[in-house]
Amino acid sequence: MTGRKIVAHPLTREGFAPFGAVIDKEGGESYPINGGKARRFHARAKTDVLDGAVVLNIFEGAPYLFPLKLELVERHPHGSQAFMPLTLAPFLVVVAEDTPDGPGEPRAFVTHSGQGVSYNRNTWHGVLMPIEEVQDFLVVDYGGDQKNLEEFRFEQPWEIHLPGMTV
Amino acid sequence: MTGRKIVAHPLTREGFAPFGAVIDKEGGESYPINGGKARRFHARAKTDVLDGAVVLNIFEGAPYLFPLKLELVERHPHGSQAFMPLTLAPFLVVVAEDTPDGPGEPRAFVTHSGQGVSYNRNTWHGVLMPIEEVQDFLVVDYGGDQKNLEEFRFEQPWEIHLPGMTV
Repeated sequence: MTGRKIVAHPLTREGFAPFGAVIDKEGGESYPINGGKARRFHARAKTDVLDGAVVLNIFEGAPYLFPLKLELVERHPHGSQAFMPLTLAPFLVVVAEDTPDGPGEPRAFVTHSGQGVSYNRNTWHGVLMPIEEVQDFLVVDYGGDQKNLEEFRFEQPWEIHLPGMTV
Repeated sequence: MTGRKIVAHPLTREGFAPFGAVIDKEGGESYPINGGKARRFHARAKTDVLDGAVVLNIFEGAPYLFPLKLELVERHPHGSQAFMPLTLAPFLVVVAEDTPDGPGEPRAFVTHSGQGVSYNRNTWHGVLMPIEEVQDFLVVDYGGDQKNLEEFRFEQPWEIHLPGMTV
């Protein structure tokens, strides 16, 4: 597996910027609302969904074991797709740049507790990968009738390690 | 306060239907995805946001004491607004029908653990009201430049009780 090993890094806004948005309370505009009883952390992500067909779904995902064999990434031509965890456990985020030959070498991130992500429209990414437990997510994406899934299977799987894992 | 007392009821899809959608894993279409590792509870809510200007925000709300004096409701002419709690505590949902004189008598609901709601566009509703703790929500709503807030202040406040509260 030499050369196919990828170590996940903690998710940061900067590192993830080419692929989408990090949804958390850091690093953006916020202001009090409701007479001071609440605070709005505004527009952490914007949807980019064709035909205005934005739907809100719940995904329930089973956890993965590590090191993880990554064989597949996917992308959605009709819309951005946001994943917000409904519990505080971290999850794994995998993305890849597009190249003339398909997705390049994946990058892997581990979220901080409470962070979500929004993948840009048509950006290669891994499937939903909880780490510690069965986990529910609010998912905001395209809900129209057009085919919205493109998959890419790597000839050889990548092996993803969590930060600090002994190999 | 006789005549101004409202007892909140457990949130149900049927009771809330005139005002919006309940976001949970019950009562709708669901199917396996990702080779069976996850399940999609599809389209629990659809956004109705003008100009396609959908944004994802986090609201951090402080809890309210009960019985609660409800003096104000609001509505948003440019878009539906969904609130999904990021922890499992319940929260209070208040809505009111529109009448020629403004909002009618409010209805109050307490969510079950893990339920969210989406208010229909231009539907009168109370502000974000956590019950037990400071609570974060993912909020999906209009993020454009038009004025999107209309408020209505009741001449006399309503008094909202939780189910099972002694009076």
